[in-house]
Amino acid sequence: MDDAVSHISQAYPDRVEVRGRDLCGDLMGRVGFTEYFHLLLTGEEPTDDQRFFLDLLLVAIAEHGMMPTNVAARMTLAADPGSLQGAVAAGILGCGPVILGTSEECARMLQAGHAEGGDPARVATDLARAVHESGARLPGFGHPVHRPLDPRAERILELADERAVSGPHVALARHLREAVAMIWGRPLTMNVALPIAAVMLDLGFPATAVKAVPILARTGSLLAHLAEEREQPLGFRMAAAAERAIAYEPPP
Amino acid sequence: MDDAVSHISQAYPDRVEVRGRDLCGDLMGRVGFTEYFHLLLTGEEPTDDQRFFLDLLLVAIAEHGMMPTNVAARMTLAADPGSLQGAVAAGILGCGPVILGTSEECARMLQAGHAEGGDPARVATDLARAVHESGARLPGFGHPVHRPLDPRAERILELADERAVSGPHVALARHLREAVAMIWGRPLTMNVALPIAAVMLDLGFPATAVKAVPILARTGSLLAHLAEEREQPLGFRMAAAAERAIAYEPPP
Amino acid sequence: MDDAVSHISQAYPDRVEVRGRDLCGDLMGRVGFTEYFHLLLTGEEPTDDQRFFLDLLLVAIAEHGMMPTNVAARMTLAADPGSLQGAVAAGILGCGPVILGTSEECARMLQAGHAEGGDPARVATDLARAVHESGARLPGFGHPVHRPLDPRAERILELADERAVSGPHVALARHLREAVAMIWGRPLTMNVALPIAAVMLDLGFPATAVKAVPILARTGSLLAHLAEEREQPLGFRMAAAAERAIAYEPPP
Amino acid sequence: MDDAVSHISQAYPDRVEVRGRDLCGDLMGRVGFTEYFHLLLTGEEPTDDQRFFLDLLLVAIAEHGMMPTNVAARMTLAADPGSLQGAVAAGILGCGPVILGTSEECARMLQAGHAEGGDPARVATDLARAVHESGARLPGFGHPVHRPLDPRAERILELADERAVSGPHVALARHLREAVAMIWGRPLTMNVALPIAAVMLDLGFPATAVKAVPILARTGSLLAHLAEEREQPLGFRMAAAAERAIAYEPPP
Repeated sequence: MDDAVSHISQAYPDRVEVRGRDLCGDLMGRVGFTEYFHLLLTGEEPTDDQRFFLDLLLVAIAEHGMMPTNVAARMTLAADPGSLQGAVAAGILGCGPVILGTSEECARMLQAGHAEGGDPARVATDLARAVHESGARLPGFGHPVHRPLDPRAERILELADERAVSGPHVALARHLREAVAMIWGRPLTMNVALPIAAVMLDLGFPATAVKAVPILARTGSLLAHLAEEREQPLGFRMAAAAERAIAYEPPP
Repeated sequence: MDDAVSHISQAYPDRVEVRGRDLCGDLMGRVGFTEYFHLLLTGEEPTDDQRFFLDLLLVAIAEHGMMPTNVAARMTLAADPGSLQGAVAAGILGCGPVILGTSEECARMLQAGHAEGGDPARVATDLARAVHESGARLPGFGHPVHRPLDPRAERILELADERAVSGPHVALARHLREAVAMIWGRPLTMNVALPIAAVMLDLGFPATAVKAVPILARTGSLLAHLAEEREQPLGFRMAAAAERAIAYEPPP
Repeated sequence: MDDAVSHISQAYPDRVEVRGRDLCGDLMGRVGFTEYFHLLLTGEEPTDDQRFFLDLLLVAIAEHGMMPTNVAARMTLAADPGSLQGAVAAGILGCGPVILGTSEECARMLQAGHAEGGDPARVATDLARAVHESGARLPGFGHPVHRPLDPRAERILELADERAVSGPHVALARHLREAVAMIWGRPLTMNVALPIAAVMLDLGFPATAVKAVPILARTGSLLAHLAEEREQPLGFRMAAAAERAIAYEPPP
Repeated sequence: MDDAVSHISQAYPDRVEVRGRDLCGDLMGRVGFTEYFHLLLTGEEPTDDQRFFLDLLLVAIAEHGMMPTNVAARMTLAADPGSLQGAVAAGILGCGPVILGTSEECARMLQAGHAEGGDPARVATDLARAVHESGARLPGFGHPVHRPLDPRAERILELADERAVSGPHVALARHLREAVAMIWGRPLTMNVALPIAAVMLDLGFPATAVKAVPILARTGSLLAHLAEEREQPLGFRMAAAAERAIAYEPPP
């Protein structure tokens, strides 16, 4: 059964080995958590650019106001104050595509577009046109709050250019924005999910790693909301407001 | 390793054995889900009274308006429409003591009180006085909506008397209500958690089984809310109302 | 905002109204949990046949040995013994399509097939052929343990015939089985998910209700495993066996 | 209702404000994720020492082999491959005190001990003696794998000394170790939870923040295991090994 193998870590009585390294003698005190997360996720320590952008993307996506995930987590802690992990889990369960964006879907779209080869402007136009005609939503576009621009998306692109990591996936993302404005007949907000995916692919991350970033980031934010909830309980107040917004009527 | 044993069930290629019975040849079509739940939970099929009251208690506790657990579950489904089980899980995580009552805590209190022996009125008075002096909350008393009575609690006690299953734990629950009114100087609502615990103990359930009832019941209710959510989306509307109820201010 | 309406329930100080009925005065003591679950889920009390088959399907699908969901839930309780709801939630999160079957997918397939009209044997053959050619899996067929028959599926079909509730969706399910044997060149096990879907559709349940049944059923089973876990801890023993089955190797 | 206030963040159409700062213009690209997590959690940017030790503690606690939480998460992803967040949530639910240590409990113990004032050696002895006599477990001591020392705990203490952040809580932790060896009559392993708590308190973190660190760290590790699971499926293999470790026997 030579495929019953994991390459992540093993604890021994006197040491812990992680990704072939000695956790206590080598990693602790030398690498920060972002670098360690990269090592855990990919098996390799990040380059400076990978580290910089992993930090940037985690910071970009972690916190965005009193999101439904934060609301659900705070209500859950209010109902079960002893279970911080239960409240975090409830919040993470809301990290579905509607709330947390579609970064992995964006990554697959960009990968497929890039794999086609040829002129990226043309690839972007064909892709946008096909989605528009099918009536589906184009991942990475549209935002309920940010208009006309998602400032996080713009800042990521700006830093990717400044640091010269923008490659073909970032280029394709920009072509998509132009194609969308033309085909939809008006500009749509490019939301933060698309540049996250584009920059990660240009830095060499696999598409399957892309969704890990928003989930880790959002966990940090949930923990902040739950720390505040323990000091300043808002969960039941929010639940009451939610309940009042809905009327009960007997079935017809 | 003779303790590495489970007594619940085993699947074989041509049959499934549950609690020593043949699922397909014996149980399916003969027992209802409530009886089956009793068999799963305790290893034995219920008596008529056990079945009647297990049904009664499940019905009593399942649904109670747009509770925070339902709100959290509906928000979660709105954010991740493909994961019904994720939304159910988020709702169940809110089934902590503050929302779902303290039925298991009540059961332990009643068991301890009954184990003391002696005059139950005196036991109840001593217990209530000790809790009152310590400043703690007495499990099974108080309700945010139901005053002066929780109609579910009253109906359970009424049916327990009618069917002659009321025993020492139900008696102790009633003594507690009187003791509480005297010691607190005003009546407190006996909520549904206390009769659930008392009736289950009088019917021979172990205290550890008591919390299973509200969790199964509430799962049924969550599934109903989530079925409605798929037809009539309210999750994001409730999240928006919750968010509007809270103001952001920068840290001082 | 006349669409901000829920039709399930409302709690008032002196009563609880559920689906237009008085919980305490009407439902408690009159209806069993299965009937109540039907009322919650659909807004209507079940007919005798609906009640019988809802019970039957809940019993059929609840428990099936030491399933991965039970293993995960028991490990979770071992790690956090105070949170029964956390352990239940962990178990429910594993109720994905691979483990818990594809009953809702089966329901959509049967609905679409039936909506086409025409000869059901022909519809079944076309459907099976299309899936076979695409290389996809056909929902409702195949099982890791039960061969050549899933005894739960057979028993459901038998009772549906006996009680004369078998209608066009059950018929289509049977045609599918024959078509599959012909097109795949060998019989595949029709698993329990397909008759669950077929019978529910023939009894008038909407397709969106179909997945609620396995989730409620499995919650009952999880609660039984967790009650046993509290008496007979197996979670860490199973975790150790799982860990031993995998070797760590440093990344290549 | 001037207490309906949150101090964390707010999204506006053209910007996002977090903890009084402009996310895009100020924080993104300037602060790393660890610093940002500190800002989210506490409202303030960390000092160099706070940042260093927050990184150190996150790295120390994130990953520790094929833990039950990783096993449960991998099984959950195997059962529901489309829901990465569901699998992460299942893993986090196992972050209870038995698995993830008792860092918050340690923090409360150290705070209480320090608040007593007086000679810390005496405080430690009294505390250890009281726990020993009560028959309870002393939080922060004992480990199933690491003996006689937990190398992570030793490395944290070493770096706390090197960087001169060791204060009264670290001192108390060391006195506890000595007191334990004397009172239990043999050395017990000081596990990683105690130095995490001690260093965080000496750096000025509130006790309520202490558990946030292991939960964020463990989320990073879960995401790594789930990324590996998508490439190298082990979940069902581990579930099968777990199942095989347990025998079914009918109830007596």
